[in-house]
Amino acid sequence: MQTFIPGPPMGTATRPPNPPAEAGMSLLEVDTPALLVDLDALERNLARMADLARAAGVALRPHAKTHKSPALARMQIAAGAVGVCCQKVSEAQAMVAGGVRNVLVSNEIVDLRKLDRLARLAKAARVSVCSDDISNVDALSAAACAHGVSLRVLVEIDVGARRCGVASVETAVALARRIASSPGLSFGGLQAYRGPAQHQREYEGRRQAVEEAVGRSRNVRDRLLAEGLGCATITGGGTGTCDFEATSGVYTEIQPGSYVFMDADYRRNRNADGREFDTFEQSLFVLATVMSNALDNTVVVDAGMKALSVDSGMPLVVGIPSARYVRASDEHGTLELPGSLRLGDRVRLVPGHCDPTVNLHDWYVGVRADRVETVWPVAARGPGF
Amino acid sequence: MQTFIPGPPMGTATRPPNPPAEAGMSLLEVDTPALLVDLDALERNLARMADLARAAGVALRPHAKTHKSPALARMQIAAGAVGVCCQKVSEAQAMVAGGVRNVLVSNEIVDLRKLDRLARLAKAARVSVCSDDISNVDALSAAACAHGVSLRVLVEIDVGARRCGVASVETAVALARRIASSPGLSFGGLQAYRGPAQHQREYEGRRQAVEEAVGRSRNVRDRLLAEGLGCATITGGGTGTCDFEATSGVYTEIQPGSYVFMDADYRRNRNADGREFDTFEQSLFVLATVMSNALDNTVVVDAGMKALSVDSGMPLVVGIPSARYVRASDEHGTLELPGSLRLGDRVRLVPGHCDPTVNLHDWYVGVRADRVETVWPVAARGPGF
Repeated sequence: MQTFIPGPPMGTATRPPNPPAEAGMSLLEVDTPALLVDLDALERNLARMADLARAAGVALRPHAKTHKSPALARMQIAAGAVGVCCQKVSEAQAMVAGGVRNVLVSNEIVDLRKLDRLARLAKAARVSVCSDDISNVDALSAAACAHGVSLRVLVEIDVGARRCGVASVETAVALARRIASSPGLSFGGLQAYRGPAQHQREYEGRRQAVEEAVGRSRNVRDRLLAEGLGCATITGGGTGTCDFEATSGVYTEIQPGSYVFMDADYRRNRNADGREFDTFEQSLFVLATVMSNALDNTVVVDAGMKALSVDSGMPLVVGIPSARYVRASDEHGTLELPGSLRLGDRVRLVPGHCDPTVNLHDWYVGVRADRVETVWPVAARGPGF
Repeated sequence: MQTFIPGPPMGTATRPPNPPAEAGMSLLEVDTPALLVDLDALERNLARMADLARAAGVALRPHAKTHKSPALARMQIAAGAVGVCCQKVSEAQAMVAGGVRNVLVSNEIVDLRKLDRLARLAKAARVSVCSDDISNVDALSAAACAHGVSLRVLVEIDVGARRCGVASVETAVALARRIASSPGLSFGGLQAYRGPAQHQREYEGRRQAVEEAVGRSRNVRDRLLAEGLGCATITGGGTGTCDFEATSGVYTEIQPGSYVFMDADYRRNRNADGREFDTFEQSLFVLATVMSNALDNTVVVDAGMKALSVDSGMPLVVGIPSARYVRASDEHGTLELPGSLRLGDRVRLVPGHCDPTVNLHDWYVGVRADRVETVWPVAARGPGF
């Protein structure tokens, strides 16, 4: 139809926007919509999870897919974590570039370009990865050999999530044997994560789900030990269940992610006594500005689906009990409330789901006592390669 | 708790990752998950919408919130558009930086920092903006005067969307009068967009919704003309309804966005004859790789909620009629299908909702005949400031 018109030069057009805040600003000066982190609450969450793991005698390897920030990963490690998990090679690269020296990609890596990057990364850090397929083990071995590195490989087993991971003990043992005998690879143990259990509302449902996962993991482990293959690590458990995995006597490592921030959906989980799940504090918020109040009993804020993930429900409004965030458009959020907020008023919103909300933003604005203390890039933001 | 650990230096850590493809690559070489644009289909969509506007005798001002790409905006303008709409000042800045010289921010801008950026932008391009509040008109005037520029201001009226915009004719006229008498501002007309009508499934429902919007717009226009305030522009209409606005005799301009790409949700609209809405072609896809097939009748691909927005339903799988994308995790998509795909196989997915899907990615991969022709940055990606 028409001659192709190229985009602008890379260097300029691909830089994310400047941070929405600078150290020392008040919340009224922060450009919105902005991703706020309450640093006091964040630090208490970090300490609490480190205490939980320490008390149970398991390793803590928090999931960096939640925050995608090496700065935050280094705080977790300073608080006692052995390293981090990632879901993507690009996330692992961002973590290593930001000073993290021990990364488990708790996921299958298949593409040859990704395998090449993964193996290269093992020259700069201790790198582990999961597999659930024998041809994939061979591909991992080839990549490791091509770069002269060693990759630690865990067999992912399905413990009820019905996503990745092998279903049978026999297949798991066969994979472990293949890993152990493959040049450039070492067999590290089992990845055994039951995702859906994290968000089961009732305590007893979560407990039973993890009991089943523990049983399946134990079966595989016992067979591996009987076959002389060893099983140094069994890793899994998210924010909703990791107290169960930690005290199971079978898991050796937990991988919670969301505990650093929490969200509205996790909060709807119930504790053993039926109260809401409040082990960790809400530390993540989206700061928004009222941009229209032309209609009665309604205001519109400047944070919609491109600032808040709505996959797990609408955000909650902080500090205004009568206000409800009822509808998210792409760039607008509609709040119903009796009375009204004024144009330019700021509201703090609790995201429904923290991970995909963080992934929409380029910057964290770290706040203490309503004053900006720092900004951090969401360094590994994106779909991840 | 612990000493604050700063993030890595800005220059390195905030650059988005390299593009997932290079010109000349085959689809098998593209790193996934990648946002593909079928350039042939895109160009046909651009031409079709330009023809529709031309035939109806209205101006075409496509919405750049969909694509966030100056390269794409320039293609739209080359095909006949008068300029673009944006929702955010940061989007408008990216468009002007990328060579677009006529931008309507089809939204209310309230924050003082944003108003300052908006007014400064008017030194480099023709800038218009909407308002639905008299104090906001004064703030726009102050910003324009501070920078010695002229801003064209449209009054946003509520035509049934119940979001931004004034409800009464009297308020609209009062705002128009204030704009017309404010230094640094000129009154441009009306913003009259009915968002929810775009996705009403039945043709007749959309037609009636727009009929109501047209009626409200006409009422306001007639009063403005009677008061001697003029009403040069009445702008609105998205991909689902803009044929109605274009032929209404009242609207002078249409603002469709999604037509460039289409998505699974728009496709579920019905035409007058009851068939699916196929006026525009699907040109946007997410390319994903099979990363696990360890379980029966299920494969897992590497594109979940961080690569595909699921607010309007799950993506569709192209070319495999028996396959259904049944569940999106943050980084995984679970496909059910009889038989199986092999590890490493590529699948093309049609996003449920194009705008927020694009907003997850840093790069477009432009493809013609299954060969990469170009990559474009999603230059204005992000929540927008």
